[in-house]
Amino acid sequence: MLTNVEHIGIAVRSLATSDDLFTKLFNAAPYKHEAVEAEGVTTSFFKINQTKIELLEATRPDSAIAKFIEKKGEGIHHIAFEVADIEAEMERLKAEGFTLLNDIPKRGADNKLVCFLHPKGTNGVLVELCQEIR
Amino acid sequence: MLTNVEHIGIAVRSLATSDDLFTKLFNAAPYKHEAVEAEGVTTSFFKINQTKIELLEATRPDSAIAKFIEKKGEGIHHIAFEVADIEAEMERLKAEGFTLLNDIPKRGADNKLVCFLHPKGTNGVLVELCQEIR
Repeated sequence: MLTNVEHIGIAVRSLATSDDLFTKLFNAAPYKHEAVEAEGVTTSFFKINQTKIELLEATRPDSAIAKFIEKKGEGIHHIAFEVADIEAEMERLKAEGFTLLNDIPKRGADNKLVCFLHPKGTNGVLVELCQEIR
Repeated sequence: MLTNVEHIGIAVRSLATSDDLFTKLFNAAPYKHEAVEAEGVTTSFFKINQTKIELLEATRPDSAIAKFIEKKGEGIHHIAFEVADIEAEMERLKAEGFTLLNDIPKRGADNKLVCFLHPKGTNGVLVELCQEIR
């Protein structure tokens, strides 16, 4: 079961610039920054009630975020839903006909195991499942 | 203050098709449908914890949703944040340099007063403020 909109990922060209902008929007500063070397991104996190807003800046030209911005410009990149058991949820969604972008949960930012669904099967929305690593 | 991710709006070509798809994704059906004549859309609503997922189908070719899909295809259209006092928040954000797409709150779906911010000032993200009508 998808139990919460855990975060919304937004692709930005510059974390420094966008940190300022979203600090003004939310009237609150990001509460942490984190690099995810494997994904070629640095991130900053804001919290609005039970949902995080994650800004993502590419650190390499072959990062998915760099390619996204090149193609579509800055903007909303993905929605991440919290799940209690990521493997069970991956199994259920595969059986429902969704295409998983990774067959084994991978390590994401913010102490999470994550799996992405192919946006061709979800109305163009890049959906992430994420489970807190306990 | 922006107190909650009230909903995420997703532009779709067909509510019937996408209702099925998101019902499979969430393992739960939409809890309501609503037309917003003034905006030229019909909508369906799912609820994940404290956030709604609002699917939007255009009912006319001049609807903002029809134009969005023509330009970018189906996908995430906007993020709506709950505010307690929409006029105060509009005033604050205008003073911070954001551009409001409407100067007076307008009536949206789901018994809300709404105001959109120009995405050029928010990293390409279409941000909606919404206040429950009491």
